[in-house]
Amino acid sequence: MIYAELISIGDELLIGQVVNTNAPWISRQLNTAGFAVKQITVVSDNENEIISALDSARQRVDVILITGGLGPTKDDLTKIVLCKYFNTHLVFDPQAYKDIESIFKARGREVTATNRTQAELPASCIPIYNKNGTAPGMWFNDNGKIFVSMPGVPFEMESMVTDFVIPKLRQELKTTPVIHKTILTQGIGESYLSDMIAEWENNLPSHLKLAYLPAAGMVRLRLTGMGEVDNLEEEMNLQLTTLKKIITPYIYGEGEETLASIIGKLLCDKGKTVATAESCTGGYIAHLITSVPGSSDYFLGSIVSYSNDIKIQELGVSSDTLLRKGAVSEEVAIQMAEGIRKKFKTDYAISTTGIAGPSGGSEEKPVGTVWIAVADEKSTITKKFLLGTNRSRVIQVASETALNQLRKLIIQQI
Amino acid sequence: MIYAELISIGDELLIGQVVNTNAPWISRQLNTAGFAVKQITVVSDNENEIISALDSARQRVDVILITGGLGPTKDDLTKIVLCKYFNTHLVFDPQAYKDIESIFKARGREVTATNRTQAELPASCIPIYNKNGTAPGMWFNDNGKIFVSMPGVPFEMESMVTDFVIPKLRQELKTTPVIHKTILTQGIGESYLSDMIAEWENNLPSHLKLAYLPAAGMVRLRLTGMGEVDNLEEEMNLQLTTLKKIITPYIYGEGEETLASIIGKLLCDKGKTVATAESCTGGYIAHLITSVPGSSDYFLGSIVSYSNDIKIQELGVSSDTLLRKGAVSEEVAIQMAEGIRKKFKTDYAISTTGIAGPSGGSEEKPVGTVWIAVADEKSTITKKFLLGTNRSRVIQVASETALNQLRKLIIQQI
Repeated sequence: MIYAELISIGDELLIGQVVNTNAPWISRQLNTAGFAVKQITVVSDNENEIISALDSARQRVDVILITGGLGPTKDDLTKIVLCKYFNTHLVFDPQAYKDIESIFKARGREVTATNRTQAELPASCIPIYNKNGTAPGMWFNDNGKIFVSMPGVPFEMESMVTDFVIPKLRQELKTTPVIHKTILTQGIGESYLSDMIAEWENNLPSHLKLAYLPAAGMVRLRLTGMGEVDNLEEEMNLQLTTLKKIITPYIYGEGEETLASIIGKLLCDKGKTVATAESCTGGYIAHLITSVPGSSDYFLGSIVSYSNDIKIQELGVSSDTLLRKGAVSEEVAIQMAEGIRKKFKTDYAISTTGIAGPSGGSEEKPVGTVWIAVADEKSTITKKFLLGTNRSRVIQVASETALNQLRKLIIQQI
Repeated sequence: MIYAELISIGDELLIGQVVNTNAPWISRQLNTAGFAVKQITVVSDNENEIISALDSARQRVDVILITGGLGPTKDDLTKIVLCKYFNTHLVFDPQAYKDIESIFKARGREVTATNRTQAELPASCIPIYNKNGTAPGMWFNDNGKIFVSMPGVPFEMESMVTDFVIPKLRQELKTTPVIHKTILTQGIGESYLSDMIAEWENNLPSHLKLAYLPAAGMVRLRLTGMGEVDNLEEEMNLQLTTLKKIITPYIYGEGEETLASIIGKLLCDKGKTVATAESCTGGYIAHLITSVPGSSDYFLGSIVSYSNDIKIQELGVSSDTLLRKGAVSEEVAIQMAEGIRKKFKTDYAISTTGIAGPSGGSEEKPVGTVWIAVADEKSTITKKFLLGTNRSRVIQVASETALNQLRKLIIQQI
């Protein structure tokens, strides 16, 4: 097993203004590639502290990944400190400058003098070019210890790690084979899942390890196999076949898929379309669907009907139903789904109506009550969910749950 | 200034299964109380690594707050390691046991033997009793260095920090005041900002420090003042007044506000309403607006018109304009904004139409081209933006930019 450490640089992390999501993201990528993270260190934009963190990390591990402090402004010191640390000097890199130019061009602007300095890189580093921002990454090999410096902006760092750092680390260092396989579940809590699969999990051989990765409304189960074992992948597939049988109704996908991308594929394959009518989710389902490139092929649009008048006027919800049953009711969810499907002439429709909170709840309909409906030409299926009292969590879980209901309707397993 | 460090213990943090939200939360509490966090270290549940982190931290700072590893199971080592480290032994603490008993009683259960051991505490520590869980915290004073160990469960740790640790730290150590003030900007890149304010920034006295915190489409400028300086807050306010004059058109707020919350307040104050007509942003603006509690008071709804047919049918966009100018055009943006405003009978409206990518771009209208319109009863203002080629960034920046355009329209500064 090869060990790595992460150093996150930035005052904003130390005063608690920003949560360090880069470190866990990188840890997961390293893990998948067969590296184990021994320590994560957060230090400020301060020369002595950065150098002391580098010195200390290199005594423990062979791979050190650094994020942050590569911006063009005065408080960004990482590049200068690394130059000093590796006893090298800055040279102008034409390719890095080209990248910066094209970033500015795409935003219709000229490169400033400050940004031009971002194309200057330490002579002894291998540049990691940045297609998404102006700060290139840097790869140093210092007497066999690998140091990689990357921007702290998540999506810039992420594509460097995926496209360059992990492949190069695997190529240069011999890692123990590690295989990860992930099963995606929705609609069941971590502890219930763990009770259901306890027997299976307890009988796993020692070279297979299960991790629960919970997110709003979903739990990913990641099985990791490692070591020089014959037919490791086959063995894992067999184990997963058993696992899947135990929790079939909760599984929606595998690997890196998302509910929105799975629905996208299903709709494309069938040449079908969808629209949404959203109340409590406020457009978040439409956002999840349209986050998938190419979604304009199957997503026609949405009506976010936050007020009752819009529900009546745009979706044909009956004012009598609203009066008798209230906006958060099975009947309104049905009328919304059927209304949008008819109006936008789509094959499928999703609707949501609920109380996201923090106020608006009652004894009978507490905060977190959400009715979700999905409809096709033959049927409309509704279900009530109780999703807790945190507004942003209610919106997220309701949206993912609604997408899963649609998935089940499309594959006729609802 | 008194410096502190945080040590987070737990394998789950190092494999990326859990995001470390405890560290930024504690940092904020310490900052407010006049302590500065110098380093955050994450180590695994391993004796040598915990001890080496403790040794290393005490060389840098006087206060070390430790979270995690206090559970009742085999992998939780923190208490045993601390006992060794401070050369002390465990003694049974009747008050801690009472707390554990009452936790179990509330769940209708008997205390297990494993949980009984949680009432055993190092003889040399001051116990920090836990009303919310079974693991007490521990306060050690080792030759003037303060070490505090707390559970990793956020709400258990949080009440210990608030009720016990911060008050006791303030009582025992004389802290220097630290003040943070943040100015929020939108629509200008980090490097342009830094060029504009270079002179002002270079003339800041050494006890005032500026940090740039960029996010999609916006940059927060954080001024930190520290030290025993007379009228520190007044001095900072004066400096900020100068700063604000230089970059007035880009400032949208201060402190912890968001564009969506600012718009919410403005609309509430004026008793006005808004609706959105979204194409390329796919419902994300509606989502940002409805993420604010109470938004149903001023947000009536949205039409996400991903297809041209929906633009024509629902928003009254002219098919002739679509044919002649294309969906991504100033004219269509105007018709969308005016269409939704009329249809939903709101005071204000926002519309977006653009190419989020990765495909769909052309020479004339490259990926990232977005037209944004904002309308009230008197006027409709449109502007074209070029927002780069990353789909999720285009959606985010276009949405925040649109909210800022609306803010400017409401305050009549567009």
